[in-house]
Amino acid sequence: MFRAKSKMNGALSWRQPEDVPAILGSHRQDVEETLGDLVAVESQGLQTMLRYHLGMSDEYGNPISSNQGKRFRSSLCIFACKAVGGSIQKILPAAAAIELVHNFSLIHDDIQDNDLERRHRATLWALWGKPKALQAGNVMRTMADLVIQQLNKLYDDGEMVATCSRLLTAGYLETVEGQFLDLSYEGRTDIDTSKYLNMISKKTGALIRTSMNIGAVTGRGDKETIKALANCGEYLGYVFQVRDDYLGTWGSEAETGKAIGNDIMRRKNSLPVVHALEHADPTSRHRLQAIYQKEHLVDEDIQEILDIFGRVGTADYVKELAQKQADYAISALEDIKIDAELRNEFQELVEFLLTRKQ
Amino acid sequence: MFRAKSKMNGALSWRQPEDVPAILGSHRQDVEETLGDLVAVESQGLQTMLRYHLGMSDEYGNPISSNQGKRFRSSLCIFACKAVGGSIQKILPAAAAIELVHNFSLIHDDIQDNDLERRHRATLWALWGKPKALQAGNVMRTMADLVIQQLNKLYDDGEMVATCSRLLTAGYLETVEGQFLDLSYEGRTDIDTSKYLNMISKKTGALIRTSMNIGAVTGRGDKETIKALANCGEYLGYVFQVRDDYLGTWGSEAETGKAIGNDIMRRKNSLPVVHALEHADPTSRHRLQAIYQKEHLVDEDIQEILDIFGRVGTADYVKELAQKQADYAISALEDIKIDAELRNEFQELVEFLLTRKQ
Repeated sequence: MFRAKSKMNGALSWRQPEDVPAILGSHRQDVEETLGDLVAVESQGLQTMLRYHLGMSDEYGNPISSNQGKRFRSSLCIFACKAVGGSIQKILPAAAAIELVHNFSLIHDDIQDNDLERRHRATLWALWGKPKALQAGNVMRTMADLVIQQLNKLYDDGEMVATCSRLLTAGYLETVEGQFLDLSYEGRTDIDTSKYLNMISKKTGALIRTSMNIGAVTGRGDKETIKALANCGEYLGYVFQVRDDYLGTWGSEAETGKAIGNDIMRRKNSLPVVHALEHADPTSRHRLQAIYQKEHLVDEDIQEILDIFGRVGTADYVKELAQKQADYAISALEDIKIDAELRNEFQELVEFLLTRKQ
Repeated sequence: MFRAKSKMNGALSWRQPEDVPAILGSHRQDVEETLGDLVAVESQGLQTMLRYHLGMSDEYGNPISSNQGKRFRSSLCIFACKAVGGSIQKILPAAAAIELVHNFSLIHDDIQDNDLERRHRATLWALWGKPKALQAGNVMRTMADLVIQQLNKLYDDGEMVATCSRLLTAGYLETVEGQFLDLSYEGRTDIDTSKYLNMISKKTGALIRTSMNIGAVTGRGDKETIKALANCGEYLGYVFQVRDDYLGTWGSEAETGKAIGNDIMRRKNSLPVVHALEHADPTSRHRLQAIYQKEHLVDEDIQEILDIFGRVGTADYVKELAQKQADYAISALEDIKIDAELRNEFQELVEFLLTRKQ
């Protein structure tokens, strides 16, 4: 699946697996190399942690070949930049910076949720303890800030660089507000789908929208096109998170690494349960609420909830919602000028997001 | 000690207690009001957490009068700005932003160290749990970024604003690198004073230096003066942290809220123990190492270590080091033009830092 060693930092090259859409694959190697350069910090211990989390090394710092992470946000940033005819070489640092913000956020998420594994590997805090992982996350975010602040070396346009900086900060602020809302919803059974969708549009959507927004701005798109691409990102955010929620309940263990009903087992307020609580008959709703109030769930509880989902038509609702948002994402780009091949690649990406198994 | 309600946001006014040096007192009320405005976020729950941590409200969001926190860094930022003849009104947002970065860092520190109390109050995570406190800290830092990015509304000088932004990011990066070093030193007994001083110059010194640097830059000081003020901040960082370490061992419980020998009880690698390990005779060193390897320390252990400190002359070393750095800080300003009254105020501040009891 992978080529041998590259010349960069002893990092191994990444080759696009055949089933990955072009948007996620074409510039993957460039993004990996840029990321590798960005996290080259002075402290060896810290660098190993950063590279480990990004899937570039094992816990001892030895380079590994991995396709950890989809690099979804950096790919969308590059796509938006290409869509407006911008320079790919110049966009790489900004695209990588967005990836760093996203990954910083994952490091803190894992601490917050006590998650021991991510992408079939031990999480950063599981290996190095929470204090160091917390600070490594903060370092990763700070590296992103530094990159964005140094964009003026690439673009002779202070105002545009300042705009990117503000977009990234505002996008991250929405993300963390969404995470905060998510935490506030824990243990509550009165969250309806509209509240839930608002929460995920912040928690997941904001940074995806920001990725496309920054790509279009640095690529020097016109105002209308930038807006269309940002809107498109907003819809993609829903597609992405709604599919995640689908997989969290109905994904197969072989592919996601998690058992069917995993989100239920963890009593997560994900879209399926939010939908079922809103639409189930009173008896089923009370059962759902009762089960979600238990300390530990057993297999029979999971099955009972899956049966309720079946009666309410929750799986169909979730799939249809993802499809609807996917249609919006495609429509958002309808009125802008864009290379036909890129448009095809975008449709391929949307199809991938709708059907991905992990 | 405090005036009644002010008109701002229902916040209570702060009045300078008589024993606080002018530099920490003169603009305190302005800084408090600016901070109050900056943390006015949409989510009520989040806002309460931010205001609580800053000592502006109780845990239910009711305004309280408190003199929580010295606002040391914002005061130094304002001092440096005044020293070069800059506008105080304009510097307030940047000064408050630095205070936010510092306080974000304290929120994460308390999580990392499992500290239940700070400044005689429950810590943020002790009240709201670690997940929410972690994210509230991230929000606080993001508010600081937003403020700095919006400085261009106040200063028609994009390059200067970009410089401040970079200074704050670089200063914070050093801080977190220092925190990371500090964590790496835990449980080790081979850290010498030179390694330790390098660590605190990052962990504590970097943001203090940055505060004075940003104050001097926004006040439009000349290059030499900016450099002198930044250097001065570096020395003040040592004075501040070395005194902190002194109080952590010999501070009285009534004033610091912590028992004598508190840092020893927690087996912290603070300056006294680092010094004693380096300078004690082999027998005492082995005793020190053995005690620091125990799971729990008892009063007799503390006393034994205090006795070793006594034999090695550790308290004198710590006090002399603080005095030496204080002299450097004063010398750093010798060759720059500065108002005589401001110079006196600065000497008064240094005296306060050397003798403070909490």
